[in-house]
Amino acid sequence: MTYQKKFFYETRGRGTYEITNEVNQAIREAGIRSGICHVFIHHTSASLTLCENADASVRSDLERFMARLVPDGDPMFSHTLEGADDMAAHIRSILTKMDLTIPVTDGKGALGVWQGIYLWEHRTRPHRRQLSVTIHGE
Amino acid sequence: MTYQKKFFYETRGRGTYEITNEVNQAIREAGIRSGICHVFIHHTSASLTLCENADASVRSDLERFMARLVPDGDPMFSHTLEGADDMAAHIRSILTKMDLTIPVTDGKGALGVWQGIYLWEHRTRPHRRQLSVTIHGE
Amino acid sequence: MTYQKKFFYETRGRGTYEITNEVNQAIREAGIRSGICHVFIHHTSASLTLCENADASVRSDLERFMARLVPDGDPMFSHTLEGADDMAAHIRSILTKMDLTIPVTDGKGALGVWQGIYLWEHRTRPHRRQLSVTIHGE
Repeated sequence: MTYQKKFFYETRGRGTYEITNEVNQAIREAGIRSGICHVFIHHTSASLTLCENADASVRSDLERFMARLVPDGDPMFSHTLEGADDMAAHIRSILTKMDLTIPVTDGKGALGVWQGIYLWEHRTRPHRRQLSVTIHGE
Repeated sequence: MTYQKKFFYETRGRGTYEITNEVNQAIREAGIRSGICHVFIHHTSASLTLCENADASVRSDLERFMARLVPDGDPMFSHTLEGADDMAAHIRSILTKMDLTIPVTDGKGALGVWQGIYLWEHRTRPHRRQLSVTIHGE
Repeated sequence: MTYQKKFFYETRGRGTYEITNEVNQAIREAGIRSGICHVFIHHTSASLTLCENADASVRSDLERFMARLVPDGDPMFSHTLEGADDMAAHIRSILTKMDLTIPVTDGKGALGVWQGIYLWEHRTRPHRRQLSVTIHGE
């Protein structure tokens, strides 16, 4: 069995946004008990990541780390038409990936106790992001 | 339904090579309307990535960024038998991954408008790279 | 067809541990000839990676590289309750990912000649890690 749905998420600019509930809702709709759930973001300047969901300082440290690793407005960048965060957003997305697959067990997304699914917006301005969720299994 | 095919790609050395057409061709052959498409590269010194496909400066900036992040011939490396790009190629592959999964919708790879699928060759010399594409769905 | 199993791995602290045999065992149990095999680690401070499996110096260089890229006890980190390796472990996991999918061909994990599947423990102390393997196909 295969179930697929599309949804949109309005970000408020750079940062991480938990979408675990949206993904679990799709799994419930699918009615699949055992299988996999694939999440995909249809953009090149936002990504998907699994992150600790308990202490928000993990996500602020992560954001600071990434800002240092891939500096906005790095003089090395030639792709700067859309601003200092443009090329940095592409690299941040490539390093953290636009696809994510989790197991489905007993009809639920089988995440670890501390794992949450996050949409990571890498542009500084708000964006409307399209995602697809596809569930396969029995 | 499951469809799988293997193909080879001859790279001309370090750089990114778009393989979106090859992947879409496999999806058409599969005749699957809704599901997922998994792409895999059978090597540890080349990887797969989704990247902006419109402005080539994105890919040249990306290449420069990666060359700075993982310098060829870093004195820290002990695995140097095959040359200065050997260990760097392994690390670059691990950071950008050898597997990639995209949704299939209406019989096509459901990429975002600006997303292309790229084989990223990390060795400086040309290589013949083996890939597998597996499509699941209905 | 879908087959899913869970297993545990006892790490001895930071480092890479090959789990190719465990994954191949699950594929044999599934009895699936052609499809995909999804591996998942249910934690935010350990990850999964494909790495060269022949020369162990690749993995020691990789470990050194990652220790420099994401330094333990970086003064930038505020999430430090569990020690200097805590936040570093989260970032290392996010950069190398907790999910991995490989093709299944002729009833086996279709890895390249030099590819092995590794559990990467990022905490310095030993941990018991839970993994799930899900195989889909025909």
